[in-house]
Amino acid sequence: MPTENRQFVLASRPIGEPKPSDFELRTVPVQAPGPGEALLATQYLSLDPYMRGRMSAAKSYARPVEIGQVMVGGSVCEVLASHDPNLPVGAVVLAYGGWQDYPVAKASEVRVLDPAAAPPRTALGVLGMPGMTAYTGLLTIGQPKAGETVVVAAATGPVGSLVGQIARLKGARAVGVAGGPEKCRALIEEFGFDAAVDHRSPDMPEKLAAACPDGIDVYFENVGGEVWSAVFPLLNDFARIPVCGLVSQYNAVEPPPGPDRLPGLMRAVLSKRLTIRGFIVSDFASQARDFYTDVSGWIREGRIRYREDVVQGLENAPEAFIGLLKGRNFGKLLVEVRAPVPA
Amino acid sequence: MPTENRQFVLASRPIGEPKPSDFELRTVPVQAPGPGEALLATQYLSLDPYMRGRMSAAKSYARPVEIGQVMVGGSVCEVLASHDPNLPVGAVVLAYGGWQDYPVAKASEVRVLDPAAAPPRTALGVLGMPGMTAYTGLLTIGQPKAGETVVVAAATGPVGSLVGQIARLKGARAVGVAGGPEKCRALIEEFGFDAAVDHRSPDMPEKLAAACPDGIDVYFENVGGEVWSAVFPLLNDFARIPVCGLVSQYNAVEPPPGPDRLPGLMRAVLSKRLTIRGFIVSDFASQARDFYTDVSGWIREGRIRYREDVVQGLENAPEAFIGLLKGRNFGKLLVEVRAPVPA
Repeated sequence: MPTENRQFVLASRPIGEPKPSDFELRTVPVQAPGPGEALLATQYLSLDPYMRGRMSAAKSYARPVEIGQVMVGGSVCEVLASHDPNLPVGAVVLAYGGWQDYPVAKASEVRVLDPAAAPPRTALGVLGMPGMTAYTGLLTIGQPKAGETVVVAAATGPVGSLVGQIARLKGARAVGVAGGPEKCRALIEEFGFDAAVDHRSPDMPEKLAAACPDGIDVYFENVGGEVWSAVFPLLNDFARIPVCGLVSQYNAVEPPPGPDRLPGLMRAVLSKRLTIRGFIVSDFASQARDFYTDVSGWIREGRIRYREDVVQGLENAPEAFIGLLKGRNFGKLLVEVRAPVPA
Repeated sequence: MPTENRQFVLASRPIGEPKPSDFELRTVPVQAPGPGEALLATQYLSLDPYMRGRMSAAKSYARPVEIGQVMVGGSVCEVLASHDPNLPVGAVVLAYGGWQDYPVAKASEVRVLDPAAAPPRTALGVLGMPGMTAYTGLLTIGQPKAGETVVVAAATGPVGSLVGQIARLKGARAVGVAGGPEKCRALIEEFGFDAAVDHRSPDMPEKLAAACPDGIDVYFENVGGEVWSAVFPLLNDFARIPVCGLVSQYNAVEPPPGPDRLPGLMRAVLSKRLTIRGFIVSDFASQARDFYTDVSGWIREGRIRYREDVVQGLENAPEAFIGLLKGRNFGKLLVEVRAPVPA
C-alpha cells in the first residue's frame, strides 16, 4: 500500500493566465478510507477548460476550489482498498478524484468501468463528459438538420471533434475552426469535416465566410472571442447557438473597452430569431443512456473517431493545463498518472 | 363612393427619433379594385413599435418601406366595393391596409371579422398581433411555472399587459415595468400584476430588485436598454428570455461607447444556463387557433382585461406614432380613421 500521496492544491487565484505558481504540489500521507469509502490510485486525470472557472472566486454553476484545496477533476482510477462490498479491489472506476495520486472517494460516487467494453480512459473523453457535452448540446439545442451548416471551434478537441462528426451523421455540413495547419488537416482527414478554418489566419473571418457559403445554422459555442465575432455576421435566420464554454475568455481580466456589442447582439436575436442557450452537461443527465448507446455504437461502427493527447506524470499537470487554455493540446488532454497494468 | 384617398407615405428615413416631416400626407384618387380585390374604408389603424423598423433601410425580418411608399400597418376596415363573391360589401375585415383612408386589398388577404364575437378593433390588439405575440412568446419560450417570477416592460401596452396577466393565470408572479405612477397603479389595480416598477425612478434597478426578491425566471424582452440592464443581474439559473422587441433602441443612432457587455452576457448565458430567443408572431402561426380560443375565453370569463388608447383622425397618426416610441400611449394605440356606424 502506498503511504505518500502527491496532490496539487490551488495556491493562488490566477489573474489572467494561470501560472505554475498558482498550483502547489504537496505530499501528504495517504488517507485511510472510511465506512462506504474506497482508496483509489489515479491512472488518468482529465484536464478540461472548465477547471479555469473553478480557480476563480466568481459565482458560476459550480463552487470554486478554495485556496489550499486539491484541484478538482475527473479521473480513471484503480480501486486499491474498499469498504464497500459492491466495489471490489482492482476494479477500474470513473471518479471525481482530482489532481492527486491516491484519492479517497465514496463508493457510491464512483462508477465501475468495463475495460472490455471500451478503453477506460474514454470515460473521460469521447464517452464521458466532453462527449456527452457535444452530443446533448448539439442534438437538444443545436438540432442540426440535413443540409444545414454547423460550425464549431476548438474542433480537434474532444467536444468539437464530436460535434462535427455528429453533425455530419445528421446530414449537416461541418465546419471546424482550429489552430494551425496540422489541426486543420486532421479536421478534414481524420474527423471528416467538410471544411477547416485556421483561427490563426489574419483573414480568419473571410476564410470562415468562404467556408460557409450558405451561412451558419448552428454555432456550437465553446470558445467565444474572435471566433464568435467572425461567426456572428454569418448566422442565418433561426440559427441555434448552444453555449457550453468560452475558453478564449477564461483568462480575461476586464471587459473589452467597447463599443458595446450587446445592443447589436440583441437586435440580431430579434431580427434573425436566434436562439442562444447555455448549458452544462449535467442539465441533460437524463440523456446519459442514449448518449452512451449512440456514441459507443458509432465508435464500434467506425463512424466516429476520437483523438487523445496524453501527458506523462502528475507533476506535469499544471503546465499541460496552462497549455490547454492556449490550445496547445491536440485531442482530449489526459495526464497519465500511473499507467494501468496491461491485462 | 369616395373619390379622394389621404395617405401617409414615408418622406425620409429617420435618423434617431422620427420627426413629423418624415411622413408626408398626400391626397390621391381612390383606386378602383381589380379582379379579386376589394376597396376598403379604414375604421381603425393600428400603430405598433415594429413600424419604426420598417422606416429604416437596415435588414430585418421584413422588408423596409421605400421612400414614397404608403406606411404599412394593420387596420380594421369596412368593405366598400368587392370583386370577390365571398367578400360582401359592408363586411368588417382585418387588413394590412396601411396609413390611409381607402386601401385596396386582395380579398384573399383580408379576414372577415364577426362583430358579434368581439369588438372588431380587438383584432388589432388583445385578439390580434400584439396579443398573440404575448401569448406565444410567453408560453412557448418563456414557459412560466407556478411560483416563478415573470418580468415585462411596457407593461400597460397590449403585449406587456397580456404577458403579465397570462403569467398570473399560470400561477407565476407578474412584475411590470411602466412609465409613471398612473401606469404603475393601473398595473396593480386594472391588470392585477403583483408588483409595478416605474422606469422613470432614478433608483429603478433597486426597485426592480426589491420587487423580485426571488430573482427573475422569465424576462419577456420588448424594450431593451435600461430595463435590460436592471433585469440582467437578477436573472435566475435557467431563466428564459423571449425577445420580441427592443423599442428603447429603435431610435438609436450608434452603438453605445462601452464597455463591451457582450462577453459578460455570454458568461452569464453559460454560468446561469440562460435561454435567449428572438421571435416574431408569425413564427408561431400554427398556434393562432389556440391563442384565439384561450384569450377570447379568458376575456369572456373576465380573467383578462385590455386597454385601448384611441387617437382621432388619420392626420394625427405621425404624432401618435412618435409618442408611442416614447411611451406616451396608455394601452393599445389605435387611430380612429372613420368611426364605424353603430349597428
